[in-house]
Amino acid sequence: MSWIDIPDGSPFGADNLPLGVFRHGDQEPRIGAAIGDQIIDLAPVASAELADVFAQPTLNAFLALGRPVWSETRAWLLDLVNDRDAVEPHLIPQSAVTMLLPIEVGDYVDFYASEQHATNLGRLFRPDAEPLLPNWKHLPVGYHGRAGTVVASGTDIVRPSGQLKAPDAAAPTYGPSQRLDIEVELGYVVGTPSALGKPVSVEDFHEHVYGVVVVNDWSARDIQGWEYVPLGPFLGKSFATSISPWVVSLDALESATVDLPAQDPPVLPYLAGKNLVNYDITFEVRINGHLVSTPPYRDIYWSPAQMLAHMTVNGASIRTGDLYASGTVSGTEQDQLGSLIELTKAGREPITVDGKDYTFLQDGDEVTITAHAGPIGLGEVTGRITPAVS
Amino acid sequence: MSWIDIPDGSPFGADNLPLGVFRHGDQEPRIGAAIGDQIIDLAPVASAELADVFAQPTLNAFLALGRPVWSETRAWLLDLVNDRDAVEPHLIPQSAVTMLLPIEVGDYVDFYASEQHATNLGRLFRPDAEPLLPNWKHLPVGYHGRAGTVVASGTDIVRPSGQLKAPDAAAPTYGPSQRLDIEVELGYVVGTPSALGKPVSVEDFHEHVYGVVVVNDWSARDIQGWEYVPLGPFLGKSFATSISPWVVSLDALESATVDLPAQDPPVLPYLAGKNLVNYDITFEVRINGHLVSTPPYRDIYWSPAQMLAHMTVNGASIRTGDLYASGTVSGTEQDQLGSLIELTKAGREPITVDGKDYTFLQDGDEVTITAHAGPIGLGEVTGRITPAVS
Repeated sequence: MSWIDIPDGSPFGADNLPLGVFRHGDQEPRIGAAIGDQIIDLAPVASAELADVFAQPTLNAFLALGRPVWSETRAWLLDLVNDRDAVEPHLIPQSAVTMLLPIEVGDYVDFYASEQHATNLGRLFRPDAEPLLPNWKHLPVGYHGRAGTVVASGTDIVRPSGQLKAPDAAAPTYGPSQRLDIEVELGYVVGTPSALGKPVSVEDFHEHVYGVVVVNDWSARDIQGWEYVPLGPFLGKSFATSISPWVVSLDALESATVDLPAQDPPVLPYLAGKNLVNYDITFEVRINGHLVSTPPYRDIYWSPAQMLAHMTVNGASIRTGDLYASGTVSGTEQDQLGSLIELTKAGREPITVDGKDYTFLQDGDEVTITAHAGPIGLGEVTGRITPAVS
Repeated sequence: MSWIDIPDGSPFGADNLPLGVFRHGDQEPRIGAAIGDQIIDLAPVASAELADVFAQPTLNAFLALGRPVWSETRAWLLDLVNDRDAVEPHLIPQSAVTMLLPIEVGDYVDFYASEQHATNLGRLFRPDAEPLLPNWKHLPVGYHGRAGTVVASGTDIVRPSGQLKAPDAAAPTYGPSQRLDIEVELGYVVGTPSALGKPVSVEDFHEHVYGVVVVNDWSARDIQGWEYVPLGPFLGKSFATSISPWVVSLDALESATVDLPAQDPPVLPYLAGKNLVNYDITFEVRINGHLVSTPPYRDIYWSPAQMLAHMTVNGASIRTGDLYASGTVSGTEQDQLGSLIELTKAGREPITVDGKDYTFLQDGDEVTITAHAGPIGLGEVTGRITPAVS
């Protein structure tokens, strides 16, 4: 790769080649592959069949082509980057484009798959009880989020307003959330759909899932706390979910595959399988440029193959463009927690950001989450908080 | 209307004219209006602009045109049906077509807006506590369902399998749901989208919502019971939600508008407004042709305008094709309950269907829900249970 200058520490080396959707000037959005700090504009260099697919404003048409085409395309891309004559005329600096939402999201499901996160929240919300609920180790707990408010990295996040009620207040009030939070998550992007009524087995994970993105599932803890019993989170989450622009393929992540932690009690047969994948990915969370946490994904309890099998065990179908996320990723150490509610013990123990006490997000704050699996980078998801509208 | 034969009791008189998507033989799906037991094939009789829109396989492009076009189109249709020369060549018997899903569903939200239903479930699940939770009269409780498994009326419903756990069992087992249920609901179809970060006020309900469908939100109570704490219903609901094929416009329903029941305690200002609509609609639920319940919509606690304002108060945007449903509609009488779990007191007190004791749905059973607002019919949603796949 001597001919392309890939900066040291770039997330996008010649063996990663994630796909994303960019807008260059006033041209129509289309699909590119990242390499270093450049983009390969794929439509003009691809075969006739794929040229149409890469000229689309989302990855969905490509994702719908399925695993054999994904693998062929990856092999082609790995070769292509060595062909200076073919590629060089179609390189565009990443600094010259706007990255857009890479997929048209079908359904968005959010899991709750980090034992450490679920335990931390249990201790905060139910201090006198077992922190994990009885179902937690039997199934990957999840719920549906709002697909229509999954937004591209860089989209401003308007502070949400809604009903807030302190535990000792007689009635709720209306106002801007005072406990606006982040959730650091890994998101899985579905390519190949399944038929209604036909569960997807854990073994078929790689047939259906194309790759991953970094997710920041913004959360308003005060809105959530008042609304969520008995039907779960709704407006405390639905105002925005930001995702990173580059979809990193499972193929590129293969070197980062690790075994799942031991699962005890044993899971039911539909969740069991050999070689259930997990990934050794580390996140870095920065608020206004200051590192506040480095959550590790590798110890997450549930495999994404188990999440997929569980999500479809009742016959629910999946569609191209569906997104399912891990839920907040937290490690065992204070500097590995994936949300401010955990980092600050529900706001009672501020952390220090840029020399100042810090609890929840303030207007103007910018949160950036990056992730990498060894040398394979996932890039970043970022968003800035703007004041509530009245 | 002497020239079209509209059978007595037809849901689709000349002042209703609901829109739906039909497939006729091997022709491409397109949009029609129902009248009596006929369909007016709209693309060939419409203006050039609307001809394209009515040749689409979903209503979404029409819905995106917004309230002024919806009103003009209704006025045009009300005139058109008097023009025998124009219409007669484009009538197709409903018996000759297959009705398809009328919309491409964006997000699907399910509310919980019937006080009687929420009270009944509270009594069943928490017999020693207040049946309504503290938030219930302050906000319309809701959650996101699975948009990708909203299916057309007539689609077979495969009995879902999943994790089941009796309260006294040590661990869950895997198997087909034994407590498969219906939920009788009214669904609201969004036409005009809103911008991210901009709440929709209760006054703007008619600007954004085009019309209604009948919803059967199939539910597996045993799967739901084990999974739903703390993040809400997921696989107990996500296997299928059936909707009726004909979307009845709010304009056609206007004669059925009624006032909301009094709301006490008073709601917060963002949920308050003059003339909050409700509708005097009655459902009829039949299992294998036998009438089992007639839930009344008119006493539902929350207006659909309030549901819309609440769903967006945090800045969440809505999209053309979004569907939001009322939640199960139950009246005060035993023969007005909108689910089998209520009709049978969680299976403890069977009802009689066709002379036999009946609790939850059996393989082969067909459930048909019809609804009408006086002479304005909403048509029907139907589905048959097929055995679980192993």
